[in-house]
Amino acid sequence: MLRKVLATGLLALRGLRLLRVPPLSVCKEWKRSCTLGVRSIEAGSKELSNFCHRSHTCGELRWEHVGQRVLLCGWLQYRRCDRFVILRDFHGQTQLIVPKDLVNGPGHELLHLQMESVICVRGEVRERPSGQHNHNMPTGEVEVLISSVEVLNRSRKLPFQINEAVKVNESLRLQFRYLDLRSRQLQHALRLRSNLVMSMRTFLCSQGFVDVETPTLFKKTPGGAKEFVVPSREPGKFFSLPQSPQQFKQLLMVGGLDRYFQIARCYRDEGSKPDRQPEFSQVDIELSFTSQQAVRDLVEELLCRSWPCDLPPLAQPFCTLTYDQALNLYGTDKPDTRFGMQLVDVTDEVGNTLLMSEHDSCRPRQPDCVRAICVPRGAELFCNEDFCTLKGLAKEYFNQDIIVVRLDGNDGETTSEWLSSGEHQALMEKCGAGPMDAILLAAGERFDMCLLLGKLRLECVQLLEQKGLSLRPYGLFKFLWVVDFPLFLPRKDDPTLLESAHHPFTAPHPDDAHLIYTQPQKARSQHYDLVLNGSEVGGGSVRIHNSQLQRHVLEKVLQEDIQQLSHLLAALDSGAPPHAGIALGLDRLVALLVGAHSIRDVIAFPKSFRGHDLMSNAPDWLSPEELAPYHINLCFPET
Amino acid sequence: MLRKVLATGLLALRGLRLLRVPPLSVCKEWKRSCTLGVRSIEAGSKELSNFCHRSHTCGELRWEHVGQRVLLCGWLQYRRCDRFVILRDFHGQTQLIVPKDLVNGPGHELLHLQMESVICVRGEVRERPSGQHNHNMPTGEVEVLISSVEVLNRSRKLPFQINEAVKVNESLRLQFRYLDLRSRQLQHALRLRSNLVMSMRTFLCSQGFVDVETPTLFKKTPGGAKEFVVPSREPGKFFSLPQSPQQFKQLLMVGGLDRYFQIARCYRDEGSKPDRQPEFSQVDIELSFTSQQAVRDLVEELLCRSWPCDLPPLAQPFCTLTYDQALNLYGTDKPDTRFGMQLVDVTDEVGNTLLMSEHDSCRPRQPDCVRAICVPRGAELFCNEDFCTLKGLAKEYFNQDIIVVRLDGNDGETTSEWLSSGEHQALMEKCGAGPMDAILLAAGERFDMCLLLGKLRLECVQLLEQKGLSLRPYGLFKFLWVVDFPLFLPRKDDPTLLESAHHPFTAPHPDDAHLIYTQPQKARSQHYDLVLNGSEVGGGSVRIHNSQLQRHVLEKVLQEDIQQLSHLLAALDSGAPPHAGIALGLDRLVALLVGAHSIRDVIAFPKSFRGHDLMSNAPDWLSPEELAPYHINLCFPET
Repeated sequence: MLRKVLATGLLALRGLRLLRVPPLSVCKEWKRSCTLGVRSIEAGSKELSNFCHRSHTCGELRWEHVGQRVLLCGWLQYRRCDRFVILRDFHGQTQLIVPKDLVNGPGHELLHLQMESVICVRGEVRERPSGQHNHNMPTGEVEVLISSVEVLNRSRKLPFQINEAVKVNESLRLQFRYLDLRSRQLQHALRLRSNLVMSMRTFLCSQGFVDVETPTLFKKTPGGAKEFVVPSREPGKFFSLPQSPQQFKQLLMVGGLDRYFQIARCYRDEGSKPDRQPEFSQVDIELSFTSQQAVRDLVEELLCRSWPCDLPPLAQPFCTLTYDQALNLYGTDKPDTRFGMQLVDVTDEVGNTLLMSEHDSCRPRQPDCVRAICVPRGAELFCNEDFCTLKGLAKEYFNQDIIVVRLDGNDGETTSEWLSSGEHQALMEKCGAGPMDAILLAAGERFDMCLLLGKLRLECVQLLEQKGLSLRPYGLFKFLWVVDFPLFLPRKDDPTLLESAHHPFTAPHPDDAHLIYTQPQKARSQHYDLVLNGSEVGGGSVRIHNSQLQRHVLEKVLQEDIQQLSHLLAALDSGAPPHAGIALGLDRLVALLVGAHSIRDVIAFPKSFRGHDLMSNAPDWLSPEELAPYHINLCFPET
Repeated sequence: MLRKVLATGLLALRGLRLLRVPPLSVCKEWKRSCTLGVRSIEAGSKELSNFCHRSHTCGELRWEHVGQRVLLCGWLQYRRCDRFVILRDFHGQTQLIVPKDLVNGPGHELLHLQMESVICVRGEVRERPSGQHNHNMPTGEVEVLISSVEVLNRSRKLPFQINEAVKVNESLRLQFRYLDLRSRQLQHALRLRSNLVMSMRTFLCSQGFVDVETPTLFKKTPGGAKEFVVPSREPGKFFSLPQSPQQFKQLLMVGGLDRYFQIARCYRDEGSKPDRQPEFSQVDIELSFTSQQAVRDLVEELLCRSWPCDLPPLAQPFCTLTYDQALNLYGTDKPDTRFGMQLVDVTDEVGNTLLMSEHDSCRPRQPDCVRAICVPRGAELFCNEDFCTLKGLAKEYFNQDIIVVRLDGNDGETTSEWLSSGEHQALMEKCGAGPMDAILLAAGERFDMCLLLGKLRLECVQLLEQKGLSLRPYGLFKFLWVVDFPLFLPRKDDPTLLESAHHPFTAPHPDDAHLIYTQPQKARSQHYDLVLNGSEVGGGSVRIHNSQLQRHVLEKVLQEDIQQLSHLLAALDSGAPPHAGIALGLDRLVALLVGAHSIRDVIAFPKSFRGHDLMSNAPDWLSPEELAPYHINLCFPET
């Protein structure tokens, strides 16, 4: 019975340093991630009790402390049998026992106090009676026999229990974020994040990078919508909150800083988007006299050095794909390379038949290729409903029919209607398919077919995982560089004009530099994206350091008003060194590391999906008097 | 001649690691400060050339490199005799020599290139000819015989020379900040700042502090004017940019984070104030289960551990004065304790005479004390004009007459008119004054007399320094704690009401806790200020963790609308641990460390005195279309 109690108690929060983690039913990823740590820069137990009242943390006492008098502070986590109390802090839990002679005296209050109240106890560490050791609890060999108790703060009855926090709906957790922060998951995520960032800083400083804070009250970036505006006290004049320190990092290079980094706060006013935040953090890096390859080497080294030591070390160098390769093989510019199921070009094998068949009747564009993916054990694991789902998705998003070839013989008849047995054999061979696999085929325009099958590939892996096939186990981290992006893309609002694929400061690929002046739409860039497990976690580029080229790109190619960037053009004219850099999305990276479903789970005080702070109710009304100094009036939209 | 050239060249920028600094006429403090460094976390020379093209930096080559082939990148700093060129980067300078056979070939371009252009050279290190070594230049034993030159970027003619930057007016420097950043002073300040912060982080992490990023898009703080507002896309609703993460740091403690720190970006919309910035950074710290003394110990340890190693180590513990003591001894709550000249109460010695004399005729309030400061060698060094200046200041700011007692006998007659020789003797003894000193006397109400003499004390020390008496030499750093502030002060707009002396979350002094309910105006607080050389560099407090007390303070004492803070009150009711913290003003601290006159000199891209970014011209106009998503109109003030 006691053992059961203690095991339940273990579900509470716990610092990084407790590496054995008890069963947790809610979220498998969390469970695994809680074993991560960055030991090298962690404080020891001893240091955790410097500069405060306690003699030890609640996670620290062991057999060797038996007989010592201790002072512990923490939260009332659990109570049973009118004598046992579990005290909890960020570091773990300790069992307290109220001596019989105190049960009706000073111990009485403790035994009737609301859970989550804060207390300070003195007592003596003693070994638990034989047979009552709890081997699942790091402090499970001992308990503290209380000699005095001080109630530091009483708690009201809380809207949810701390160890149940992950089961509560997210709005309630956000409203009471200060309670959710006590959960093991958030404690772990925030501590891992702090440790990761500290390791990164240590490495970057060791390489001569200078941590420079750049302003967030800045000027509007031309072409950059989505910037929050901040009215100044000068009538009609506004600051903007920049989306990144891009201009500043380049100006620092012009200023000869040589190597810059910053954990930079960035802002983006996009309204509601899934898993975006109006303010977010990036690891911002820029250096002079460098090359694309050198920046990528730097980032690989940075990640390897700061990688949590309880995970398998990262393999170097990271894989690299060109944008075209990524699209052809995975149907996306951010491929998840943890699993195969690559796209295969089967135009030669089945194109003659398929491109002429009825299956392409509803495609608007001239079909030019056939692509396939092979779903391992798809014929065995997918039911008809699953295939219908996949076909439905293709229809919904791409208005496209796909063909399913089941290799368990169940669709033998339909396939044989239009594929000769020779073609069938060639298809299987090209796809590396075996019995019980399934092949998805799509015929049409190359770019669209790639995107379609890229999407179905991700859908298939989810379906397979729901059937118990683990293709993307937690703890498998696959980094990938994607390079050679196009420099410009047709503008969505007017495809006869061009816009930057990334931003206007990106340098062209050296082999395509001449195209900027003749066929800019064909030029590739020196942009590079870093992808982790199918998520973009970073992006950077070699920058344009020549003012003539930069002016040409802004004025002639993009048709921007260069007045807004005259300071940057002047800077490039004043001895700007060649430079390049990158920004890593810190929130996303940490979320992937701890296996969180949303970046909200790795941010201390995130905004909700709709961009609200549910705890304080921000944004909120302001009075006309409060707006007066800024010379603005409200104008409500007509309803 | 060559030696002279090289010495001139040395005036350029240089990294932290160059500890010998050449003569610099512009600013004495800078010169001294350039010897500071935080060696332990610095990159080695070798690491500075990882991940880039160069084989060495421009500050690195020594005798032992002779014979090596090197690749250097940098800025063209100086040229002479048509063959010698000084190449500069952040790390130092190297002399290049163009071989005679290249002078008319590839070297020709180099020899005619605009200064500050960026080049990349290959060549061989050789020892300078005998007699041409430059011992003031770290690379002065060698030069590089160029074999090839690549011009990486041409510079236009610049608006000012880099090594003259400190002489240029500040507006021009701010407009071309990217050029000013190349100056030795700014390079040094930004690198020292980065190193200092890194050392602080290292120490705090070693003590279990978690680096948590808190939001800057938040709700308006009640009572807190001066917050920038940020319109949201919801009509009429606004975020505010908070002046500090005060609420978040306390909520993190309620959330059981235990120990938090952050280099926090803070915002303050005050319009033009001398040496303030609309955004600034503070080292923000909070911990649970602690005490005032423990926080002060922590901060002392933090500063000692991160103190630049080239300065004399700090003495611990720092001195402490109560608010009353500081006022009585120094006439200010942020005393500069680098020098004496303390205020002396001479009411007993000369009060009988003075408080009755004609000298107090124009004071509105009942005089109750006589205070004095003794100016060392004042009678010798100050001329009549100086004394007039001091008297004028007293009249201007306090409408108060002061009496000067010159101890060189020159005012013997006037003094003896109203002071007996016995009183004169007693005054000298009480002030510890000797021959040639001067004593300033002021009679009146205690608080006013203290403030007046506190101001004159600082004025005197400046005058004395102008006369060559060094009382506050650069390199002398005196920290001081000031404690036991009043908790509340009469409101300026209505003195019958109270406002918080610091902020409403400050806990009362334990001895005065009962006064909150009876005579709150008499209660002292548990606020503590950290003062360095007469500037406030930090402030913190033990916080109220009891919701009843917090509610009473907000509602009854301060008469605030508690609705705006309901989330904080609810948090205090949910098991809030006792907690305390502090915030250190990073910009001010670094400015004092490097001896800069303004915090603008330790910020990469500061706003001007009037709050403008002179480089990009922010804040700037926005179009009605750009404001439309925020449902705001401009309303221009009537002129």
